[in-house]
Amino acid sequence: MSTAAYTRNDRTTPTRSKERASWDKDAVNAILDAGYLCHLGFVADGAPVVLPTIYARVGEALYLHGSTGSRPMRGAARDEGLPVCVTVTHLDGLVLAKSAFHHSVNYRSVVAHGTAYQVTDPDELTLALNALVDQAVRGRSGDTRPANAKERAATRVIRLELDEVSAKSRTGGVNDDEDDLDLPYWAGVVPVAPAYGAPQASPHTAVPLPDYLAG
Amino acid sequence: MSTAAYTRNDRTTPTRSKERASWDKDAVNAILDAGYLCHLGFVADGAPVVLPTIYARVGEALYLHGSTGSRPMRGAARDEGLPVCVTVTHLDGLVLAKSAFHHSVNYRSVVAHGTAYQVTDPDELTLALNALVDQAVRGRSGDTRPANAKERAATRVIRLELDEVSAKSRTGGVNDDEDDLDLPYWAGVVPVAPAYGAPQASPHTAVPLPDYLAG
Repeated sequence: MSTAAYTRNDRTTPTRSKERASWDKDAVNAILDAGYLCHLGFVADGAPVVLPTIYARVGEALYLHGSTGSRPMRGAARDEGLPVCVTVTHLDGLVLAKSAFHHSVNYRSVVAHGTAYQVTDPDELTLALNALVDQAVRGRSGDTRPANAKERAATRVIRLELDEVSAKSRTGGVNDDEDDLDLPYWAGVVPVAPAYGAPQASPHTAVPLPDYLAG
Repeated sequence: MSTAAYTRNDRTTPTRSKERASWDKDAVNAILDAGYLCHLGFVADGAPVVLPTIYARVGEALYLHGSTGSRPMRGAARDEGLPVCVTVTHLDGLVLAKSAFHHSVNYRSVVAHGTAYQVTDPDELTLALNALVDQAVRGRSGDTRPANAKERAATRVIRLELDEVSAKSRTGGVNDDEDDLDLPYWAGVVPVAPAYGAPQASPHTAVPLPDYLAG
């Protein structure tokens, strides 16, 4: 809401090689592992396109799910791959300051740049499909019918190596100017986080709620 | 998680002109008005970049906040503007099917394409800054110190007309194949939505919690 949103209290951890310090890698991985929805950016006919999709992190790579025949999937199927930017953002709070200028948000985000390639190796595809299911619900891939040959052929997954990655976040409270501190406005932070409701079983479910959904 | 995530049960409402049917406009606006965090895509040196930022919708335009001197803000300051893609996504649920293939997510998203321009008109800047504060917390802009001349000069806002916009969503339950219905796995939907915690006042707050934060 002000430029302060992305400067003050911000901690940027650019990690442009795999030899990045471990705390950097840990910071990046913690943000990636806390989510499963990303925004995939690519260039089509010279113009930017940003689409939401799901991802999974496996070691030093991200796997992204995409529709067969969609533009990014066709691009990633080429030998030269598809230049992409994958961004994961968690919103943690609204920061309401005494001045409009110092309004901000608390957040954690990771931006990964690189070239994405279609996953074609059968074993890697199996690994990626399981990871995509497990990223949102740990343990789920072992409690569902695996994809058959026809389904695997109809599913596209792309891989992006985590070579050029940066993490950015804002945490903490309000950063008001000294002169504004006594203004008669409410200031503070309103926390926000995703909340999961009670699982709603389908009419065809005849088993009890699995442990991995009980949390 | 499967291609079904973005095909089955999906409702696509491409609205490529301002003369789009009103229910289309309403669908787009409802999704935009339900959020304040977007992902801004642009092309830098031929490569895609996707950054999270905040936005506000005012009529037929989006206003986006950006740091002074950042790449998209410099690009939008040029006479020719900056080609962008702005995407807003709300995640509504995890759809767990009996088959891995039919795992999916419920979501609502809007993708807006166009050319963004820096807001330079003083009155429009005032309107945009107030809207950016109010998009997340309705009524807040009237209960904070407005930006002064120095702060306004340090704030960049870009405008994107909502000329080429599409809304997409998935709602509802599981779409399992007939042959899978009796498999002994749990299937159903786990709802998810942002949850706001109790507002945490700063040490310098001497007024009661405003009504607009009580909800």
